[in-house]
Amino acid sequence: MIKLTIWNEFVHEQEHEEVRKVYPDGIHNTLAKGLADAELQIRTATLQEPEHGLSKSVLADTDVLVWWGHMAHDRVDDAIVERVHKRVMEGMGLIVLHSGHFSKIFKKLMGTGCDLKWREAGERERIWVVNPAHPIASGLPEQFVLEQEEMYGEHFDIPAPDELVFVSWFEGGNVFRSGCTFHRGQGKIFYFRPGHETHPTYYDANVLKVIGNSVRWAAPSNAATPVRGHSEPALEPISAKN
Amino acid sequence: MIKLTIWNEFVHEQEHEEVRKVYPDGIHNTLAKGLADAELQIRTATLQEPEHGLSKSVLADTDVLVWWGHMAHDRVDDAIVERVHKRVMEGMGLIVLHSGHFSKIFKKLMGTGCDLKWREAGERERIWVVNPAHPIASGLPEQFVLEQEEMYGEHFDIPAPDELVFVSWFEGGNVFRSGCTFHRGQGKIFYFRPGHETHPTYYDANVLKVIGNSVRWAAPSNAATPVRGHSEPALEPISAKN
Amino acid sequence: MIKLTIWNEFVHEQEHEEVRKVYPDGIHNTLAKGLADAELQIRTATLQEPEHGLSKSVLADTDVLVWWGHMAHDRVDDAIVERVHKRVMEGMGLIVLHSGHFSKIFKKLMGTGCDLKWREAGERERIWVVNPAHPIASGLPEQFVLEQEEMYGEHFDIPAPDELVFVSWFEGGNVFRSGCTFHRGQGKIFYFRPGHETHPTYYDANVLKVIGNSVRWAAPSNAATPVRGHSEPALEPISAKN
Amino acid sequence: MIKLTIWNEFVHEQEHEEVRKVYPDGIHNTLAKGLADAELQIRTATLQEPEHGLSKSVLADTDVLVWWGHMAHDRVDDAIVERVHKRVMEGMGLIVLHSGHFSKIFKKLMGTGCDLKWREAGERERIWVVNPAHPIASGLPEQFVLEQEEMYGEHFDIPAPDELVFVSWFEGGNVFRSGCTFHRGQGKIFYFRPGHETHPTYYDANVLKVIGNSVRWAAPSNAATPVRGHSEPALEPISAKN
Repeated sequence: MIKLTIWNEFVHEQEHEEVRKVYPDGIHNTLAKGLADAELQIRTATLQEPEHGLSKSVLADTDVLVWWGHMAHDRVDDAIVERVHKRVMEGMGLIVLHSGHFSKIFKKLMGTGCDLKWREAGERERIWVVNPAHPIASGLPEQFVLEQEEMYGEHFDIPAPDELVFVSWFEGGNVFRSGCTFHRGQGKIFYFRPGHETHPTYYDANVLKVIGNSVRWAAPSNAATPVRGHSEPALEPISAKN
Repeated sequence: MIKLTIWNEFVHEQEHEEVRKVYPDGIHNTLAKGLADAELQIRTATLQEPEHGLSKSVLADTDVLVWWGHMAHDRVDDAIVERVHKRVMEGMGLIVLHSGHFSKIFKKLMGTGCDLKWREAGERERIWVVNPAHPIASGLPEQFVLEQEEMYGEHFDIPAPDELVFVSWFEGGNVFRSGCTFHRGQGKIFYFRPGHETHPTYYDANVLKVIGNSVRWAAPSNAATPVRGHSEPALEPISAKN
Repeated sequence: MIKLTIWNEFVHEQEHEEVRKVYPDGIHNTLAKGLADAELQIRTATLQEPEHGLSKSVLADTDVLVWWGHMAHDRVDDAIVERVHKRVMEGMGLIVLHSGHFSKIFKKLMGTGCDLKWREAGERERIWVVNPAHPIASGLPEQFVLEQEEMYGEHFDIPAPDELVFVSWFEGGNVFRSGCTFHRGQGKIFYFRPGHETHPTYYDANVLKVIGNSVRWAAPSNAATPVRGHSEPALEPISAKN
Repeated sequence: MIKLTIWNEFVHEQEHEEVRKVYPDGIHNTLAKGLADAELQIRTATLQEPEHGLSKSVLADTDVLVWWGHMAHDRVDDAIVERVHKRVMEGMGLIVLHSGHFSKIFKKLMGTGCDLKWREAGERERIWVVNPAHPIASGLPEQFVLEQEEMYGEHFDIPAPDELVFVSWFEGGNVFRSGCTFHRGQGKIFYFRPGHETHPTYYDANVLKVIGNSVRWAAPSNAATPVRGHSEPALEPISAKN
């Protein structure tokens, strides 16, 4: 059983009719429904809740956190960002979706600008598997198509991912590293590109499969928490020289 | 359920009394017993069997193959090596133990010399976790000790591993990249250093935990088999220029 | 001063009028002319020469070897392949171009099948820089175009590159990891995708810049040759336990 | 010509007699003297200078910045940290030494805690080359010894380095990833472990060779600065679907 918390800023859906038509219950609930699985215990959280729904107890009880945000990144409280960061260091998995590339938590974890090229032209995206040995590609065809998506293009200002799983082709001439894994502290992070709020991307079976696979992949590994700091006595004898 | 085949050249145990005392039933049977788990369906195979116990049907029915060899690497038939290589490309996991670094299959998969420093002095080895987010480190302490092992030292002539999970410290002044993952084709490979035939290493609880974790990690991911070669027609229209 | 040897199988140019029109002096001489630089001492070698022009003395006197081959991979002598491999392990750089992905030396170094999708439709290729910190991207724009090229598409059956420098977009809907670095032994390897024999790719200023940059990057690093094998006495005292 | 700025917090040398005896002119001046080379144009900067000696014009005129800090990390102004970060994103190289692992700039670039085990016991350190193809290992023996150093031990809480060049062995039973490269934005970063302020480490010929090599390696690559943000019009035609 993996305890999954799906976080959504949940602003577009309330403010923009065009988005509400696609996600009337919010992206978080669409994802919760689409990912439903006997192996997962799912809850949701949004920006508007106290502590953005990410209290200490909720995070302590979360194995993997999914993050969707866009227009309200700056409304996320810095203290909550620190709290999420700490939990990733402790082993909580983090799945960052689409415009989450510019969230405070992703930028803090990456250490880079995380900017990219973008274009809203409803163009076709082809997502190619470039690491067919990776569990996040489980059950997928060698490529799949999203008929209309926002374009994200290189250069994507992130550290080289530990593993590159997907590369996107866009009709308008761009490419993008669309599925990227990172290990940070005891935590595993997966960035997955698709999911513009005006397109029904999170109803797509392949997209849901990728996210579900990534949740399983990112579950905590439960190695011992490393002990750091002053380390005496030595484990082995040290010759006296001083 | 993961179908695991444990391959052992099984020569030392039959020829050297010193080794037989430690592994009277052979390293393969000690491993099979130590790894026994409801999630694993285990069989063994040895050099002496027809086709070294690795017939097409056995390999087709194997999710993960464990490999221990040392003094008889050159007696492994090249056709069997090709067969194992083909199965790794198709997604079979491969766990290469200790002196298997010089096996034909490991050298073929790495593309390098795979040589290293070694010393049989029964010295102490400390195995440190350097990637506590990795599932192969699950349930392990931050380091563990093998009181007596053969030393393997750098430079280990392998490609940089995709993920470095363990680094060994040796009493005699050497270090070694002891736990290394590689993705090749659709297959996942893990090299794990310990296991000299004169030491009871494969009875050690931490060593068994690492090998068991690696078997789970290396199980096939079941992404679609990539289609390669001539690729027509194009997926998207190409402007006529010729 | 870097000693560069440019190897070309030089068969298409002699057999196919269409190719001879593009490269009347052979791809090797076009590259030699295009890469000419005070910092480089360039020679060429071809399949037809004794020992394919890659005698022990030539290779011993080569810092970086560029390799172009296609229809005659199987005519390259295995002993020469071993000789080139040995030199890469010793520190010689190797730049593998285009259809060289299927050369014996590249397949041996990679350990995988090295196959890919391909299509000869003269389509447009856009080559995007995905690692703008890399010296191989020096002096390049963020992307550049080849108006007509053969398509190579994923999945490209190679190990994950140590560094991914370029990703290609193709008009027909495919993507490709077009610029890949690998460290093997003491040698550095760069695979660069473009260069179909019927297109004037090796006259393109950006393509020549990439190859020139890669030659400089791949020059030997001159770290000490690692000593491997039996390593006694120990560097540090080992407590007596036996 | 590479423009190198060596930054030192320069507090230990002024406050602790034990340190002043080893580095009477400060670590920065010892490094400047030890790295002197016709290819380098060197200046120094310290915490006590206005803007810590890192004004906009100094940083704009710096190709590579070396950083040593320890007891005064928190006295480094956040605005200066932002300024250095921006320059790394733009391509300036950064060499972080020893206790710089806990500097604001390194933690910001890594996105992790950057903590480690440590012990001041004057124990022997052996630094092993694990990537003999890397230019930072140029001219080095396969290992070298520092007779007395502070111990730093795993787990070192950093992202997996893009390239691991050195691993340290310590007398007291610890290992450490001592030489790590990272690409961030257009900049290259190298972390190098040795250099406790009470030991004469920065007079050691091998240590100076490593730092000098890393400065050359980290010099800006001068690829085009990526253009990010809104990207219209598309480079290729997009079929009308809306």
